[in-house]
Amino acid sequence: MNARFARRMKAMQPSSIREMLKVTEQPDVISFAGGLPAPELFPVAEVRAAAGRVLAEIGPQAMQYGATEGILPLREKIAAEMNRRGVACTAEDILITTGSQQSLDLLGKVFLDPGDTILTENPTYLAAIQAFQCFEARFVPVPTDDDGLIPDAADKLAGRYKPKFLYTIPNFQNPTGRTLSRTRRAALYDVARRRGFVIVEDDPYGKLRYRGEAIPPIKAWDKEGLVVALSTFSKVIAPGIRTGWAVASKDVRDRMVVAKQAADLHTSSLDQIVIDRYLMDNDNDAHVECVRKAYGERCRTMEEALEEYMPAGFSWTHPDGGMFLWVTGPEGLDTHKLLPAALEDCVAFVPGRDFFPDASGGHCMRLNFSNSRPAEILEGIKRLAGLCKGASNNIQRRYMHDCFNTQSRTR
Amino acid sequence: MNARFARRMKAMQPSSIREMLKVTEQPDVISFAGGLPAPELFPVAEVRAAAGRVLAEIGPQAMQYGATEGILPLREKIAAEMNRRGVACTAEDILITTGSQQSLDLLGKVFLDPGDTILTENPTYLAAIQAFQCFEARFVPVPTDDDGLIPDAADKLAGRYKPKFLYTIPNFQNPTGRTLSRTRRAALYDVARRRGFVIVEDDPYGKLRYRGEAIPPIKAWDKEGLVVALSTFSKVIAPGIRTGWAVASKDVRDRMVVAKQAADLHTSSLDQIVIDRYLMDNDNDAHVECVRKAYGERCRTMEEALEEYMPAGFSWTHPDGGMFLWVTGPEGLDTHKLLPAALEDCVAFVPGRDFFPDASGGHCMRLNFSNSRPAEILEGIKRLAGLCKGASNNIQRRYMHDCFNTQSRTR
Repeated sequence: MNARFARRMKAMQPSSIREMLKVTEQPDVISFAGGLPAPELFPVAEVRAAAGRVLAEIGPQAMQYGATEGILPLREKIAAEMNRRGVACTAEDILITTGSQQSLDLLGKVFLDPGDTILTENPTYLAAIQAFQCFEARFVPVPTDDDGLIPDAADKLAGRYKPKFLYTIPNFQNPTGRTLSRTRRAALYDVARRRGFVIVEDDPYGKLRYRGEAIPPIKAWDKEGLVVALSTFSKVIAPGIRTGWAVASKDVRDRMVVAKQAADLHTSSLDQIVIDRYLMDNDNDAHVECVRKAYGERCRTMEEALEEYMPAGFSWTHPDGGMFLWVTGPEGLDTHKLLPAALEDCVAFVPGRDFFPDASGGHCMRLNFSNSRPAEILEGIKRLAGLCKGASNNIQRRYMHDCFNTQSRTR
Repeated sequence: MNARFARRMKAMQPSSIREMLKVTEQPDVISFAGGLPAPELFPVAEVRAAAGRVLAEIGPQAMQYGATEGILPLREKIAAEMNRRGVACTAEDILITTGSQQSLDLLGKVFLDPGDTILTENPTYLAAIQAFQCFEARFVPVPTDDDGLIPDAADKLAGRYKPKFLYTIPNFQNPTGRTLSRTRRAALYDVARRRGFVIVEDDPYGKLRYRGEAIPPIKAWDKEGLVVALSTFSKVIAPGIRTGWAVASKDVRDRMVVAKQAADLHTSSLDQIVIDRYLMDNDNDAHVECVRKAYGERCRTMEEALEEYMPAGFSWTHPDGGMFLWVTGPEGLDTHKLLPAALEDCVAFVPGRDFFPDASGGHCMRLNFSNSRPAEILEGIKRLAGLCKGASNNIQRRYMHDCFNTQSRTR
């Protein structure tokens, strides 16, 4: 085993989220960990009808090998959807992927050499860190605030580190729930244009907005072909039917196609054709409206419960959509250490540290609200708040103790 | 764009097979190109029933995120199948992949650094060359004959080049249709053990045997955990439902799981659960028996037609199973140049050169017999034989011309 191999293996550790998911599968655990959509809201009957119909009408085609790019009718529907979002494109610009996670891997293959720099939000999506770590990327986190990442900071860092690309989740970011403002999208695109780097815009949650008005994707500003826009059916139909997509300039898209060919030949024909049929036979916007209503209520329930039960010293984000809310505790809190006690109390969350390429954020945690019903959210937050209160008191005691000891020594 | 990036992009050219598939989709072309199973033999009604049942009974689960390893009941069935083939393993040893193509990508991630050597058959599977080229592997082809690759030659090359692994398709190899004999499997395993390299044993076609007795996989000899065995449902159920698997030692399998997590999180839940249900409700061995009978007839038809129509100077393999037959023409034939004329005559094949890591084999071609009916095979081979006769005469004329000129000059 040579040095690079050992280094890459070190980088390729299983994510604590997915390892934890195994523990939280026990039915009595209220899990705010994971990032699962609500399965009771999946359009099961409609997908069942679609699957029955395609296997009856074009069964052999739905079971045969297909083109790497994905099936044309579905690429046409995706292009139409992207145009509605403000992105001018055609089916030729679309690559269908095995979940949008696959795009991260393909972009790593297309763009990254060991040691190459990428800019990311801080914190950012855990599985993006993992995907780019496989290619031994160097992560440079860009400072963020409540309006998302700060373009001036990205500008300075880009000047210094010459990144291959900047990776961002502009809508209801994972893990913070924050949204990049319209002004900043324009400014960020301008920075990318001037500095000559690519923007990878990952937007799985954009359609799940509970408050305020939709903001166009950064790709809508893109005249130079600098933005690769990623999205997925995972959050608006179902994630188990692994079907996502990328929209990119011809050059980048062609390279992604070649990389995908070597990676898995093509995305499941059955999955693609079932989704295509489902979209033809149903009003998916009406379905998304139901999901949005339910998740919006869950989000509000969580915010209100946090307001009522959490001790002083804790704050949290107020997402306008998506599936996650981000809690920041007092300095000195270690949410990794808090987790075993939480699991004992049958409530789960994801400790914040794993989302930070620079391993800061040990006093933060990510809470998912889409996969628990309001009553569970209320009960789960009560339990979590109790634990936070205990931890907070301990920190205070330790602080007092340290002060006292310091004073003792000083005397 | 730095040097390595440019180098990798050069390696990542689209395969001529898949580009050609687009041309051969025209209905009047008899295509021996591609590697498609016969869609008219897919168990469509059974898969339709399975899909209907799982979406009715466990719809939300079939549409939700799942574990990276794959669903347990299907891994148990795969383990049972591998035990029947002579490989001692449990569900814990199995990783379900998005087609077995994905395993090649994951193994590249786990094992290969730029410049690392791998041993392969010569010729070998085109998309394996592509997958490993993404990781800038150095290919060292091992000499092969009618019994597959030659273990003594592998031994010498391994001593000289210290390969990370040897990649082989032991049954009815793609592209040649050749099978590695039992004696050579034992000998090859012995070489790997002594030299300390991994064997990647890719077996998509093993169940499609038309003549002779099944030979155990190399993995059956494996006491040291040196063999990674790959297989798939693509050729025994359907390829569009992208579901394959790897059996590996705990160490390698765990690393592949981590790599897969970053690559696509997991293989489609719907696809996995539909296949699992299909296997529970149907006798797939009986289905494979039908496929075997039909493909066996197609194989014989192609062999007989070649015997009857091909001109002198051409020879071909006599596969005991699988989907491909390999034709070798006279030295001086360039099958790449023959292809446009063939397409004009509405018959297609894959030129041999692309299958050789060392770009030899320009006078060879791969013929697929699984995706054409016997009458088409007969007609297609007639057309192809006509073209080969013409090309052969041209080579002879050129040769005579060269001889004459040489004699003229000599005089």
